[in-house]
Amino acid sequence: MIVLGVDPGTVATGYGVVAGEGNRFHCLTAGDIRSSARNPMEMRLLAIFDCIESLIAEFHPDAVAVETAFISKTKSPQTPIKLGQARGVILLAAARAGLPVVDVNPVTVKQTVAGNGAAPKEQVIYMIKRLLNLPGDPPSEHAADALGIALCHIQRGRYEALAAGATQGRRR
Amino acid sequence: MIVLGVDPGTVATGYGVVAGEGNRFHCLTAGDIRSSARNPMEMRLLAIFDCIESLIAEFHPDAVAVETAFISKTKSPQTPIKLGQARGVILLAAARAGLPVVDVNPVTVKQTVAGNGAAPKEQVIYMIKRLLNLPGDPPSEHAADALGIALCHIQRGRYEALAAGATQGRRR
Repeated sequence: MIVLGVDPGTVATGYGVVAGEGNRFHCLTAGDIRSSARNPMEMRLLAIFDCIESLIAEFHPDAVAVETAFISKTKSPQTPIKLGQARGVILLAAARAGLPVVDVNPVTVKQTVAGNGAAPKEQVIYMIKRLLNLPGDPPSEHAADALGIALCHIQRGRYEALAAGATQGRRR
Repeated sequence: MIVLGVDPGTVATGYGVVAGEGNRFHCLTAGDIRSSARNPMEMRLLAIFDCIESLIAEFHPDAVAVETAFISKTKSPQTPIKLGQARGVILLAAARAGLPVVDVNPVTVKQTVAGNGAAPKEQVIYMIKRLLNLPGDPPSEHAADALGIALCHIQRGRYEALAAGATQGRRR
């Protein structure tokens, strides 16, 4: 199973493609889509869309996993609109490729990857590096988040398959 | 000048294409893009994107005018995210066609179309019908909003051109 994980943002959108087979995972690519805040918003959205479309064309993921949007009340009312705009073009790229979109909650990522929903960032990054056998740190924090999202979705799928198998075994 | 006006929303997105020549305007098309709330969000966004792309291909607008996003504090925190997602795919369709995107404030629409920023909806719709010489009501409230947005952008362009001409005249 191959999953494209995405951490959306208009300034920087992180991405990470993870392939999983049994209990082995590896990272096919990871990075950031960055666009100057001086560019018009529509050009920044175009850069995000084009990059996600070319990642889908190159790595043929089975699903796109996107970080659930959480908005703290202290931020400007424009923040959720901008975040929504970035999410919109990512969801669109998935829909145009006929791929399912999965929302992944950051707390679930921590729980699944590091075994603790309140794990500090360093511990989550350490586990991502171990699980993916990375030689060094992920290229950025956003890329690390995206890899965590992809890993989490693959691992959840594995647990569900194992649970379904165990249920079938008991039924026999 | 031809302008595609859009009033974004994930349940219903209004659109209206207006052509202006001198002080005469006419409506080339107007309507709603509707998608069942039971469809996955990515499919609803795809429907909005496909429709905006085909309107651009058919009517060759010079610009896309989109209603500025205003969020009241009482609404759910998911509302601005959803609105942003719809805006995102509309802005993307414009960027892919190389068209400029203009944000149009609803108060400016009322001021420009009905001469009063606090004009009631009925008065704005009445003026839209008069200015565009429509035989009946616009197909929906969202379509009326989109026509108002397009009209407002064309009229503002006319005023600016007249003002620039007047300045040049005085300079001579």
